[in-house]
This record gives sequence, structure tokens and C-alpha cells, in this order.
Amino acid sequence: MISFMNDYSEGAHPKILELLLASNLEQNKGYGEDVHCDRAREYIRQHIKKENVDIHFIPGGTQTNLLAVSAFLRPHQCVIAADTGHVNVHETGAIEATGHKVVTMPSLDGKLTPELIQKVLDSHDGEHMVQPKLVYISNTTELGTVYTRKELEEIRRVCQENKLLLFLDGARLASALTCKANDLSMEEIARLVDVFYIGGTKNGALLGEALVICKEELKEDFRFLMKQRGAMPAKGFVVGIQFEALFVPGELLYYELAKHANHMAEQIGDAIASCGFDFYAPAVSNQLFPILPDVLIAELEKSFSFSLQAKAGNGKSAVRFVTSWATTQEQVDGLVQFFRLYSKAH
Amino acid sequence: MISFMNDYSEGAHPKILELLLASNLEQNKGYGEDVHCDRAREYIRQHIKKENVDIHFIPGGTQTNLLAVSAFLRPHQCVIAADTGHVNVHETGAIEATGHKVVTMPSLDGKLTPELIQKVLDSHDGEHMVQPKLVYISNTTELGTVYTRKELEEIRRVCQENKLLLFLDGARLASALTCKANDLSMEEIARLVDVFYIGGTKNGALLGEALVICKEELKEDFRFLMKQRGAMPAKGFVVGIQFEALFVPGELLYYELAKHANHMAEQIGDAIASCGFDFYAPAVSNQLFPILPDVLIAELEKSFSFSLQAKAGNGKSAVRFVTSWATTQEQVDGLVQFFRLYSKAH
Amino acid sequence: MISFMNDYSEGAHPKILELLLASNLEQNKGYGEDVHCDRAREYIRQHIKKENVDIHFIPGGTQTNLLAVSAFLRPHQCVIAADTGHVNVHETGAIEATGHKVVTMPSLDGKLTPELIQKVLDSHDGEHMVQPKLVYISNTTELGTVYTRKELEEIRRVCQENKLLLFLDGARLASALTCKANDLSMEEIARLVDVFYIGGTKNGALLGEALVICKEELKEDFRFLMKQRGAMPAKGFVVGIQFEALFVPGELLYYELAKHANHMAEQIGDAIASCGFDFYAPAVSNQLFPILPDVLIAELEKSFSFSLQAKAGNGKSAVRFVTSWATTQEQVDGLVQFFRLYSKAH
Amino acid sequence: MISFMNDYSEGAHPKILELLLASNLEQNKGYGEDVHCDRAREYIRQHIKKENVDIHFIPGGTQTNLLAVSAFLRPHQCVIAADTGHVNVHETGAIEATGHKVVTMPSLDGKLTPELIQKVLDSHDGEHMVQPKLVYISNTTELGTVYTRKELEEIRRVCQENKLLLFLDGARLASALTCKANDLSMEEIARLVDVFYIGGTKNGALLGEALVICKEELKEDFRFLMKQRGAMPAKGFVVGIQFEALFVPGELLYYELAKHANHMAEQIGDAIASCGFDFYAPAVSNQLFPILPDVLIAELEKSFSFSLQAKAGNGKSAVRFVTSWATTQEQVDGLVQFFRLYSKAH
Repeated sequence: MISFMNDYSEGAHPKILELLLASNLEQNKGYGEDVHCDRAREYIRQHIKKENVDIHFIPGGTQTNLLAVSAFLRPHQCVIAADTGHVNVHETGAIEATGHKVVTMPSLDGKLTPELIQKVLDSHDGEHMVQPKLVYISNTTELGTVYTRKELEEIRRVCQENKLLLFLDGARLASALTCKANDLSMEEIARLVDVFYIGGTKNGALLGEALVICKEELKEDFRFLMKQRGAMPAKGFVVGIQFEALFVPGELLYYELAKHANHMAEQIGDAIASCGFDFYAPAVSNQLFPILPDVLIAELEKSFSFSLQAKAGNGKSAVRFVTSWATTQEQVDGLVQFFRLYSKAH
Repeated sequence: MISFMNDYSEGAHPKILELLLASNLEQNKGYGEDVHCDRAREYIRQHIKKENVDIHFIPGGTQTNLLAVSAFLRPHQCVIAADTGHVNVHETGAIEATGHKVVTMPSLDGKLTPELIQKVLDSHDGEHMVQPKLVYISNTTELGTVYTRKELEEIRRVCQENKLLLFLDGARLASALTCKANDLSMEEIARLVDVFYIGGTKNGALLGEALVICKEELKEDFRFLMKQRGAMPAKGFVVGIQFEALFVPGELLYYELAKHANHMAEQIGDAIASCGFDFYAPAVSNQLFPILPDVLIAELEKSFSFSLQAKAGNGKSAVRFVTSWATTQEQVDGLVQFFRLYSKAH
Repeated sequence: MISFMNDYSEGAHPKILELLLASNLEQNKGYGEDVHCDRAREYIRQHIKKENVDIHFIPGGTQTNLLAVSAFLRPHQCVIAADTGHVNVHETGAIEATGHKVVTMPSLDGKLTPELIQKVLDSHDGEHMVQPKLVYISNTTELGTVYTRKELEEIRRVCQENKLLLFLDGARLASALTCKANDLSMEEIARLVDVFYIGGTKNGALLGEALVICKEELKEDFRFLMKQRGAMPAKGFVVGIQFEALFVPGELLYYELAKHANHMAEQIGDAIASCGFDFYAPAVSNQLFPILPDVLIAELEKSFSFSLQAKAGNGKSAVRFVTSWATTQEQVDGLVQFFRLYSKAH
Repeated sequence: MISFMNDYSEGAHPKILELLLASNLEQNKGYGEDVHCDRAREYIRQHIKKENVDIHFIPGGTQTNLLAVSAFLRPHQCVIAADTGHVNVHETGAIEATGHKVVTMPSLDGKLTPELIQKVLDSHDGEHMVQPKLVYISNTTELGTVYTRKELEEIRRVCQENKLLLFLDGARLASALTCKANDLSMEEIARLVDVFYIGGTKNGALLGEALVICKEELKEDFRFLMKQRGAMPAKGFVVGIQFEALFVPGELLYYELAKHANHMAEQIGDAIASCGFDFYAPAVSNQLFPILPDVLIAELEKSFSFSLQAKAGNGKSAVRFVTSWATTQEQVDGLVQFFRLYSKAH
């Protein structure tokens, strides 16, 4: 059984493991104040050409999201998100558990727009309702789509005009920034948003997300909040090492891994499109959501594992295939071959 | 500079890294439902001779503590702890951030007693005060002391009589169970408490604590709460692998590592005692709290790093030396030699 | 300026004030354990023919809602509500501030249905999402509509089948139970739901809501939670007195006041309907939501105050007129006359 | 049975009830934006000679305390309080339920001092511990003692030097400011603290506390937080009316009521002192804590109700007698007579 279930099935890229082993017996300071975390911070600052950012290494994505919201908002303020947003759907109410409402707008492609944000603002007025304060977007989105520079600039504009914070969940930022539909750089993102994170877990790290706080006012006392939420590992250097390996200047393994994942997905996407199947959302990154006949899905499940996204009616369903840094050409060939055979037979 | 600062300065024991590498390209299920977590659970169940326990692998100790409290208590219920308890002092209010008060009693050696628990019960009455519900103890304690079987049985008795839950923080359980002062086994602990955790981070793992829920009523929906608090890593198998390696039947690396740490500490403790110095708390495990002259401390700081615990007056202070699985005989010799020279000179 | 802005513009019905004055210098016990609260509890138990309920008098509606949710749910469980529900829209995130998500379904008339509830259940699966646990309905709804016995029985059925708690917000329960569209009694409600409250503030009391807990498992320690949320007034007897006066057996002022409010609303509703205007939601209780031309609204605003509900397009808007126990025939005549004149002129 | 149990046994002073009745059928705006609240605010501003304060009327004291803490602190910040502080002991963990720790210092007379505050600051350092931020004091304290001007100025100084907020719980502020030991005015308090509240419930009001926010930075969006915590009553004018009646310029009923209560207490205190009994805390306001023989207490309980404060050993206990605006000379005479008879007999 070959798994296209997600991009966190395997451990870490060998170069990360190498660094982990090489440094294993060093005596490092605890809690993220070690040389590896510092070096990783330096690499990232160089890469985004921005010195005045705070960078924190956090074990997981849900932690990072709940920390950002609870650290930056006052109790009566809420998050604006697409209804498909990870914070809304797949975190067991982690945001609400910190006391904040997530106000959502329906989105077909997983993206927020200035118009959707404005609708939330227009429908919230006065002290009997929560106060919209932080815009949550993800890139890639939960549907594998990406924001263009123009789209992000327009969202930034509506945020600035309305004193909203802009937070970008980059759990799959590497895939976004290396896909063909992308015209953004991490440097530009760091300029356009107030805070974002660089996802490690879903791009070759054992664990870890790097939260980058760009806005000065958001920096104060953030480490207190990390500790309080249990997001400041004693062996913080283990997380730092992941990003140190991923962001070595010149190499930038971070993007190499995502390029590979995207390239693998592209071949699968092309094979599916050749069969004439539609997609639930544009197929541009390492997550693909083809709409397939249920009978075909049953056939696929004999050799491949993947997840069901939604019933589409008419005996069809949208499924999700995910590729990763660890997906092999051989694994992809198996899936592509399956669709080629189907194509010929129909 | 040799560090006796803590027991989480180095990475992981080589056997753990070996297993991590060997399994690196497996396609594992996410979120702790993989074969490594399952195997680790099986090993632990065998070891404690108890099948009907739920075992969850959680990245860190603060997370584990806040999860246990918030999952098991209703909003008006509180924790009873020694004033030295980690949940009271060193977690930036993590427990309170989940809505619960920590009611503390002063303790000179870091341990709770039936009498101290009873005092809390006697001073809490009716709906204008929080309701005592969960007794938090740690073994070893934050002062390096350990509970005897008799002490733990007596605490259990007062808990049962008053319908209190008994939770044991085992961040340093390995050191406790392998030290000379100990007469408890993990099997007995699993019989005496309602829930406890087996600390990995401070005993040779890259990260991770294994929470063992013994009481049936506490098991329901615990994974929902893990996810909500950001304590269910996507690559849960990384944490599972730590405990798989630590609890291989027959080897039980878990105890071997702690025995080493304790043995290292013992030599240091003996050397210090030979100089006639007192200890802030009995020196029985891998944490030592000698009370030393400040001038001597200044001298020590030139070659060793360690932490200051408290001013003791009269130009003396209590400091903390911690040993670990990774402490070498050479490092210990250096420190022992320092005290021997001091002894001769005085 | 005559106000149809809401049903809490005036103080209390004279009979309540009389009782307040008559008992003013009694020395009562604090915190709701006095004879007036006890008598009010007894009156209500008699009225709903149910002895085994716990009744708590709580100063306000938002408090009552947030208490019910936070007392009865575990941290990972959520509320199911219509998108128009008071807990979703108009309580500044009070529910989320206690840590719980409100999952909403779109509802045109403010009511939930078994189908809508089932949709929430169908879309929530497993530990990565919140667990649906408490169904929140209001009667009358925020749009002035009411549940029929059949509708409530069906909701109860889906709740029982899925182990969901059923909570009825009765801020305007009096208006619901005395309107022409109603076929329910309070006795039946107490049989069909797990917990509900009898609204006082919006039906002639100075303040206060009477929470009735029917389900045995929900009763334990509720007063602890009241105190913790600041919902247990020192002079609890002040709230008890409101309900003592409203539920005097034989008189049942509670319903008399609502009948009057409904009768006042009916006349207004008829006058508006005669003009051929549509309603945003069926006009059956003391809240009316006619859709009126904006020019007419501007004219109305010269003599009457009322609130704007929503833009309806085509130069029209839905507004809200509310009547109360204190609305006079004279006030109503003024508004009716306005619409009669309009009717003649068009 | 005559009750000296507390100062909230009776309803409201007749002048408050008069105003309540006189305004009963007015159509007032909701949520504290009415003319009565505005007038009460104006009266209080005049009285404290300070225009630039925000004043909010909140139903109860626990609500006021939890609101102040949760509105003004970030999640990692804590309250500093005397161990006897109401927020620590008698609010069922209301502060912790909003996520904040209360760090306490032992205090024999219920008062904090600069030294005690400094001790908390000295023992809190860095991100592994909560960050001290708000100093909570009460005047009168829970033991009936009062702060002198000098004491309050010194506390203010330590707060300013350490960027701590100073919050004064004035549930019994009237008794404090009218007792013989007092040398402070409300005007001075408004100058010395950042935020305080003027207690109504325990000084002749049906309900209500007036929170006065002096510090500019604390004012923003406070009404959002009131609504969220269920502390913004629909009929806010009911609370406003209490303070309108209590603060009529020239009359200042607020102080007249407290003077009466203090005068009543004084007579009781003198009678008890004449018997040679000690007091648990200095007897200066409307709460007295004599230490009496248990046999005498048993005798007293036949005719009077009062509460037990603490066992004092040697067959003695500290009890609490409380007087109020409604305590009659007759009631006091009864108690005084009891002690005179005792005095003669011994």
C-alpha cells in the first residue's frame, strides 16, 4: 500500500538527521536559547532580508496558531477566517479554547478576499458583538491553492485600513512558494504580513514551525506565552536544528524539498486531468483534490491510501492526494500508471 | 565549560537515534496512531503489568500537566500541590491559563503529605471557594527528593477517602525509581495513582512524555483534548519511537540511563558532603542542592555551569547540580576533584 | 418619542415593586438561599408540575447562557445553534470566552431543525474537530418566531439519539407561550428539554432569569459555577422576589404581562400587514420585523424609536418593533394610526 | 434572631427605592447608556473632582474583580494580593477562570505593603514564571482594616517604579472612608490608584458596584468585556439609579449610610473591648472580629446570627459581626447589653 495520505508520514530529510546526529552530544542551552536556534534565526533573517523580526521555533502548527491568536488579541477580539481555515475546522476548537471566536466566511477555493473581510467588518458593530481583529490566511490553503502577490497586497490594504492584524499560516508555505502558480517570495510575505510561520513538519522536518513576528508591537513577552501554552520545549535546539538544516544559505533545502513534492504532484495532476476529471479546487501545489467516480475510488483504495474530502453527488467524490519531499518517482509512477490505464480503457 | 545545568542539554541516547534513523522512510500513520506508538504502549503495559491503561505520547511536560488538569477537572475544581511544585512555580501559569487554581501548601522537601492535603480540605468549604479535586505530586520532586511506598500509599488513602484524583508528574521518574532511597516500582505507582507520566525529555529522549491514564473514568475523549491544546504532533511516531527504544523488554534502557545519572550524582554528592557542606534538600537523585559559600560558588563558575537555587544567608547560597544519562565520568571527575582540593585546603 | 426599541426600557411591574418594598427591611440570607428564592422555586415547581428540578436565579441572560454551556460541557465540546442565535451573534463571544465553539447552521426563521442538527453531526467526526454536545434553541427565537410542540419533540428525539443536551433560552419564553401560534406549555417544555430558563428581564422584572435544570446529571455543583462567573448576587433575594411576584399561583402575572405585550404587537402587526408590507420573519410574538420602504422608515423615525434589522434591497429595510408589558394602548394607537394613514394615502 | 451576619441582608435604602419607583415607567435606553447612569457618573466625577475617568456600573463585586483583571492583563500576567484577599479566597477561582494566577503574600491584617509586593517581584524572574502586573488591594480589607494615605502612597510608589497596575476593591469603600482610622478621601484614591470600585451592594444599594477607570490606557473597549462576561445588564439604569441616589451632591447618602454602620459597629466594639476580649484584626470599620470563648459564642448564637472566622485555640474562636446602613440602634443595644451583662458577671 502506497500512501498519498499526507506529507507527514515519513521522518526527516537525511540532511536534518545528519545535523541532529552531529550535534547530539553538545551541551546546549535549553528552551530555544542555543546556538542552533540562533543560527537558524540568522539564516532565516538573511533569507527574508529583514533583521528586525523575532523568530520562535514551536513544535507544532496548532500550537503556533493558538499562540498567535491568544498572544495578540484582547479577550473580546476575534479571528476572521475562510470557513475552510484550519483554525476553524481541524483544531478541535483550539482557538476558542483560548477564549476567541473565529468568524468565518464561505470560500470555495480556501482563500479570503478583501470583499469577504469587508463583509465581516460590515456585519460587526459595537460592543454586543466580537471585534474583528486578526485576519487568518493560509498559504497554501487547506485546498492546496495559493495567494498571488496582488491578492496578498489587497488583503494587506484592507487590514491596514481597518487596523486588522494579518497572520499567515505557512504550514505548507514551501509548497506555495515553489509552485508554478506562485509569484510571491518569502521576503515579500515578511513585508506584507504582521506575522507568519514557516512550516517545517510538512516539509521534511521531524517537527517544528518557525513563527516570524514582523510587527514590533506583537513581539513583547512572546516567550512567556510560549511557555504558558507548553510550546517551549526544554530541548528547543532539536527544533532549531531542523530549520538550521533547511535554511543553510546557498543550499536552501527548504525549497528543494517542496519543489520535489510539487513536481511529484504535478505528474499525478496531469495524469488525472488527462482522464477528463474535474478538480474540487485548482491543482497547483502538493495537495490535489480530484473529483472521481466512487467505483474508481474503490479500485484505487486497493493499492493506494489517500483521504476522502467530500461527496460530490452523482456517484462521485472529491479525494485528496498529497505528495511530500519523501514521495518517490516510483510511487508516483504507480499512481500515474493507474490513471493512464483508466484513460485508455474509457 | 562543563554544564551541570540540567538533564536536557544533550540530544538523545544513541539507541533512540538508531531507531529513528532505521524507521525514517517508513510511511507511518499520523497523530500517534502508528506502529511505533503502539509498540511503545505495549512495552509499557507489559512493564507495569497492567493492560487496561490508556497511554498517550505528549511532546512536553508542561503540556502534559496542563492537559491532565484541564481534561480531568470541572471549571470550579482546583489542584493541590506543594508550593515548590512545577505546576505552581515554573510553568508561567499554564494551569491557571486553563482556568484552574493551584492551591499550595508549604513544603520544605518538595513533597506533599496527607496532613498537608488535609489542611487544604479543611480550609475549603462550600461554593464560595474552589473545590479541591486533584492532588499533584512529582517524583522525583523539584528538590530531587523521592516518595517512599508508604508515603505514596498514605497519600492515596487520603485521596480515596476524599474523592480526590491523584496525579504523579514523572518528568524525572526514572531517576526516582533507580535511586538508592527508592522502594517503589513503576508497577506499584500505576496501581496507586489515577494518572501519571513517564518522563522522556529528561532521561535521554529527544522529546516526549508518556501519560498513563489508569482510572477508567478519566480516559474518555482524551485525544480530543490533546489535539485542542496542540499536544498531538502530526509526526506522533517521532515521540513514540523514543519510548519504544527506552522500553525494549529485557533492555529497559529507561532505567539504565537513570542509573547512570544517579551514579554520577552520587559521586558529586559524596565529594560535597566530605567537605562538610549541608544540602538544601536530601541528596538522593540526579539533582543536588548543596549550600555553598558564595566565594566558592564564584570559583566554581569559572569552570562549571549550574544554577542558583536560593540565597541561604551568611554568605552562602544553595545551588543546583544536575547529572544526566549523558554526563561523563570525566565531567564528574572534574567537579569531584574541585571539591577534593577544597577539602584538603580547609 | 415613543420607543418600540425593546422590552427592557422600563423598570418592573408594580406588583414586583410592591413585594420588593414590603420585604425591604427583612433580614434575608445571602446568595439565593433566602425565603423569597425558595418560595419562587416552589411556585415554579408547582407550575411545571415537576418537583425534581434545580432552579437558580441568575441576574442576566448572557450570564445564564455562558453558565449553562461552561457548566455542562467538557472543553472539547461545542454548542449547535442557529446562525441567528443570541449566543452566536450578540454576546461578544461570551461562549467562546469560556472556551467553547459555537457551530452554527443558517436559519431563515431563527429556528433549528432536526435536519440542521443532523448536518452538524454529519460534518463532525473524530478528534480533530470539536464534538457537538449541546443544542441551543431560543423560544421565542431572536426573530420572534416560536417552536411548536411537534418541532420541539423532534428536536428532542434527535438529541436523545445522539446524546446531545437540549438547552432552551427562554429570555422571551413568556411571549412564546402566550402567543397565538403557540401550542406548548411550560410543563411540556420542562419535560422535553434538559435545561431551560424563564426570562424575567424582558417580561416585567427589574432583572433576572430563572434557570431550570431538569436533567439530574447536570445539577451537581452548579452553584460553584455561578459564584465563579460572578452570577450569584449577594442580595440574591432581590432576584428571587421578581419571580415570586411573577409566579404567584392563581395569578401567574408572568403570563398576563406577556399576553398584554403580544396583544399590543398584534395590533401593530395587523396594521402593517394591512398596508401590504411583508415581514422578515412570521409576526407571531412581541417582536415584529416588517420590511418597509426606507422613506417610510425615515418618516417613522420622527416619532418612534425602533431598531434596524437588515437592508432588504430595493430601497427597503427590515426593522424591529418590540412591545412589552409596559407598552400602552395609547403608544400602540399612535403607531397603528401612522400605518392607517399610510394605507389610505397609497 | 437578630442578624449581624453581613451588610447585605436587607434591600435598599428608602431613598434609592423612591428614585426607582419615580422612574419606573420612563422609557430608558438599555445597557447603561441611559440618563440615570449618566447622572450618576456626573455626580461621582464631581465628587472625586476628576472628569477624565470612565465609570461603569456592574451588578456585583466578583464580576467587577474578574473583569478588571481579565480586561487589563495579558495572559501571562498575574495578580499580587494578600492571602486574605477576596479574589484569592472567596470567589471560587473567578480570577483563575479568566486565565490568570493570583500570587499571594501572607498578611496578618489583610493589607499589602511595599515590602510584600517587592518580595513577589524578587521571586519572579523570566519567562518560566508568571509576570507580576496588577496589585489588588481592598479598602476596607476583608478583615475590616483600612489603608492610611501614607500606606497607599507607598504602594503607589512601588507600583509606579515597577510598572504595576494598582487596583482597589472598594466593596466596602464607604465604611473605610468614614471610619475614625481613615485619613483618605475618594478624591485622593482616584489620584493614587489606576482603577477602583465604589461598592454599592454592601452599602445600601439593591445591587451594583461603580468601577472607576482612572488610567487612560485601561479604558479602551471595556464595554466589550463587560458584555462578554455577562456584566452589562439590559436594564442598566436599575444599577445607575442606585448610584444616582447615593451620590446626590450635597446629600452624599453614600457616606451617611456608612457612618451609621460604623457608628453601630463602634458601640459593639467598645462593649466587647470592655470585656477585655482581644480582636483578630483592629476593630475600625463595620466588620468586627472579636476573639471570644466558645462557650460565650454558643450563648450568643441563641439570640444573634453571625459568622465564625477562625479557631483561635484555647477554647476560643474569632467571630465576625457586621453592621450595615440598616442596622438599628435597638439591634445594637441587644448585643451591647449581652456583653455588659457578661462583663458584670466576670
